[in-house]
Order: sequence, then C-alpha cells, then structure tokens
Amino acid sequence: MSNQLKKPVKVALVQLASGTDKAKNLLHTRDRVLEASAEGAKIIVLPECFNSPYGCSFFPSYAETLLPSPPTTEQSPSFHALSNLAVESKAYLIGGSIPELDTTTNKYYNTSLTFSPTGELLATHRKVHLFDIDIPEKITFKESEVLSSGNKVTIVDLPEYGKVAIAICYDIRFPELAMVAARHGCFALFYPGAFNTVTGPLHWKLLGQARAVDNQIYVAMCSPARDMCAGYHAWGHSLVVDPMAKVLTEAEESETIVYAVMDGEKIEETKKGIPISAQRRFDVYPDVSKEGVSIDKL
Amino acid sequence: MSNQLKKPVKVALVQLASGTDKAKNLLHTRDRVLEASAEGAKIIVLPECFNSPYGCSFFPSYAETLLPSPPTTEQSPSFHALSNLAVESKAYLIGGSIPELDTTTNKYYNTSLTFSPTGELLATHRKVHLFDIDIPEKITFKESEVLSSGNKVTIVDLPEYGKVAIAICYDIRFPELAMVAARHGCFALFYPGAFNTVTGPLHWKLLGQARAVDNQIYVAMCSPARDMCAGYHAWGHSLVVDPMAKVLTEAEESETIVYAVMDGEKIEETKKGIPISAQRRFDVYPDVSKEGVSIDKL
Repeated sequence: MSNQLKKPVKVALVQLASGTDKAKNLLHTRDRVLEASAEGAKIIVLPECFNSPYGCSFFPSYAETLLPSPPTTEQSPSFHALSNLAVESKAYLIGGSIPELDTTTNKYYNTSLTFSPTGELLATHRKVHLFDIDIPEKITFKESEVLSSGNKVTIVDLPEYGKVAIAICYDIRFPELAMVAARHGCFALFYPGAFNTVTGPLHWKLLGQARAVDNQIYVAMCSPARDMCAGYHAWGHSLVVDPMAKVLTEAEESETIVYAVMDGEKIEETKKGIPISAQRRFDVYPDVSKEGVSIDKL
Repeated sequence: MSNQLKKPVKVALVQLASGTDKAKNLLHTRDRVLEASAEGAKIIVLPECFNSPYGCSFFPSYAETLLPSPPTTEQSPSFHALSNLAVESKAYLIGGSIPELDTTTNKYYNTSLTFSPTGELLATHRKVHLFDIDIPEKITFKESEVLSSGNKVTIVDLPEYGKVAIAICYDIRFPELAMVAARHGCFALFYPGAFNTVTGPLHWKLLGQARAVDNQIYVAMCSPARDMCAGYHAWGHSLVVDPMAKVLTEAEESETIVYAVMDGEKIEETKKGIPISAQRRFDVYPDVSKEGVSIDKL
C-alpha cells in the first residue's frame, strides 16, 4: 500500500509550557495554536498531558470523561476547547493527550484526541504501552499504578492529505505500531510524548529516526517544554524526521513552536531509491500488519 | 526468552583492506585475525566479501563451492583458511562473507561462514535481502542481477557464551530479522556489511543503534576498509553498539581492528530498567518471532 500524501502540508509542533491551572493552560494553548495557524500550519500537534502536570498523582484530579461522545463541557472542557480551536485555527489538531476517566469501568487512560478543521473528533488513541521503567538512581516511573492501557493501533484519515497514525510517548519504543501504520498507508507517525532528562538524550531522537528509516515515512514527536520546578523534567526537543531519517527541525528544551513541511514526493523518492517495501521477505518472517492486528481506523 | 551471555567476551571487528588477489587477501586476513587473537578477542568478525572486491562483476569469478560440506580445498580455499584460522586464533570466527556458487542449482549467493575455535563450521548464512538500490546520480547497485537470496534467519549457539545471530549488510534494514533473533535468545547481532559513502553517513550507525534500542542486545557491524581505487567505496566505520544503543567503539574508514567487550550484565540491567520485553502487546499486534518464521538454528 502506498503511503500517499496528497499535497505538501506544513506541520507545527507546539512545545508547550503548562502549569497546574488547567483553565489557564487551555487559554495558553489557544494562543500558541493560533500562532501556529497564523504561520500556515495545517496540522498542529500538542504534547502529551498538554494541559496538566505529568505524574501519577495528577492523573485522577485532571482526568476528564469522554464517553459517551461527545461529552458535555463539564465532563470534558479539553474536548470542547480542542474542537473549537481546530475550527478557529482551520487546521487538523492532534491534541497531545489528557488523562481520561472511563466512568463505565472506572479506569483511567492517557488519551489523545484528534479533531478536523470543522471541529469533528476524528480519532481517540489510548496509550497502548504504559510507561513503567526503573533505572536505579536515575528515574523510576510507573504509569500502570494509576492508568490502564489502550488496545488498538490508531490510524486516522485526514481527507485533504492522507492517513496518519497517532500514538503516545512510550508507544514509540514498540516498532510494531509504526510498522502496522506504515504498511496500512500512513504518510506520518505522530507521537505526542514526554521523555525525560535521562532517557531523552539517549533515545528520543534515535527512536524517531529509527521509525522513519525502517518505514520510510515522516515522524513527528511533540514534547512539553521542560519545567525544572515540576516533578517530571520533560526532555523537550520536539522534532520532525523525514523518510530518509533526516531531522528536519528540532526544538531546544524551552517553550517554542517548530515547523516542518511534509511532502509526498520525498516519501516516493525514498521508497523508489531504497525499495525496502517491495523487498521484505514475508516468506521468511510474518508481516506484523496482517494477521491478528487490532486497528482503530477512520 | 532471556538473552543470556554466560560471561563477558571481547569481540574484534577486523576492518580489512583487501585487493583483487584472493590468495594474498587470505594471507593478510590471517595476519590481522591473529593480531586480534593476540589482543584477547574471542569472537573475531570479518567484513562482507572479505577476500574479494565487492561488485556484481566479481561475484562469479571469486565464487567458491561450499556444498556438499565440507568442501575440498580446491572447491573452497576460504572455507579451509577460515577453519584453520579459527583453530589458530582459538576464537569464534565470523567469516564476513564470500560469493558462493551452489553447483546443484547453479545459483550464486552472498554467504557467511562461522567457525568454532576447534575449526568446526557452526553456521552458514546466505544474505536474505539482496542489495538492490537506485538513488539517482548517487548510487545504483543490483545484487539480484547475479545473486540469489537466502531464506532463513541464522541463529548460532556459541557454547561458551550463548546465542548470536548473523546476517549480512542490507539485511540490517529489515527489523524483523533482529526481532526474531533477539526474541529467540541471542545476546548479539553480527552484521558483516559494506555500506557505501552515500548510504553510510545517512544510515549505517542509525541502523545499528535502532536494532540495539529496539531489542536491547549488542549489535556489531564489520565493514571492509575504504578503497578509493576500487569500484565500490565502502563506508568503513565498523562499530559495536551496546543494549542501551550506546556506540562502544567505531572505526574510521582505513584498515583497523576495533574491539569491545560484550557483557551479559549490561543486557540484564537494560532489560530490567526499560522492560519492553515484558511490555509488548501481542494482543494488539502479532509476534513476528512466532508463527511462520524460518530459522536456521544450531
């Protein structure tokens, strides 16, 4: 399947600095998203937990209820803020993630909402791989103490451009999600994510480039800005990688917006030059994108 | 399955400068392998096409016949040179690759032979993914004009240390081989390979680090030295990457030997700190190492 991108598209990654006041965070998000829109961005991406601090102790108090959809403004102020902001910015808005409470099961999730320029909800991705790591004397984190995990690869069709996949942060460590998405025709993988100052310098850029080189599509990773007063120190360094694994743009750690143009011709040129898509040996190993894969596809 | 390495092992990558005279190349190989052995290396690796120039026009004239095994000295001088050299060096010898002619089918292959310190042939890997690329005005190469491809993932048990996988050059672009090998217990992936001055700076190190970070085992890539008088300009830059994706050693482009110690404790520490092996979601996507995979395993 081709990884078609119908026309070049300017993408903005909003490396947002958020605090503890959700209402203020939503107002600040609006300012920065409209700024990206004024610069011509047609796909705008927010970071993981864009309107709350990141940490297990914060998830329950910041969680919103998304089901049944659409939720009321009281159930999910972020849903409505993002939907309105997509309309206002005339862009596809990949709304980072928010803590979600599913009241039917009483389970919490780390959930990303994507809206169309008409304000319609296009995709919901619940983080599939929870961030449970334990590097002695450096960082220990256990999302699974509070969160439950999603169970689908999320692919969404942006009608003017083509298909993209959305996953969250630690999901990028699992190459299968990217392989499935690319083989189902996505032109880009979007990962809102908050790596930290331990794993960030080791693996953040490498993982973005790894997914790009193996799948020959674009990869965009959007981090929160680093806040040394917060409990969790996000790595920052939001970046876009092209299908040849070249880093097109990369932020430092402070609040900023970085931009890149994704172009279908670059995908085609890459795939033609190094034609791995046609050279895979599914007689020697199975294709992870075929049997037994669970995809949420719009 | 654990990726057990029973005790630390010193590995040498011999970034060899070879010419057009096979007999001379074999003598030169002996000198450098014995040098590595004298430095204490217990796994010694040679580059792709270590005793011939690299190029479709050379494969037939340098090809040797390996079957039935063992071949006579006339059928395969390299087989016997490597076997003797493994004994002499008291090391496991991963003999890069040589062009092979299978006289039963009249097909040519790019084939790697691995010998034990007692001179026994432990594994034969025929390159699975042939190097057919076409980057306009930069590099066009089509191994499939002359060569046929292998059809197995190659895993070999080195009794004193544990299991390793062997694949060749372009095979590294296909993550499935590495995923299968790691999930079947290998502690390291060895890729004799000759990238070039176009794809080398873009992807050689990245691919080594990508396979390491996704599989949390060691990766070693051994290139020929660069010869600007030859038709094909090898990238050089032989390197070893550790399970955290850190490059432990990396050559420049000239003839040299680089060394690194592989240590099972580093694998364990990595897997414990970032426990992706236990976190994969085979309820969401299939495990490429299970159904329908073809493995040559000793």
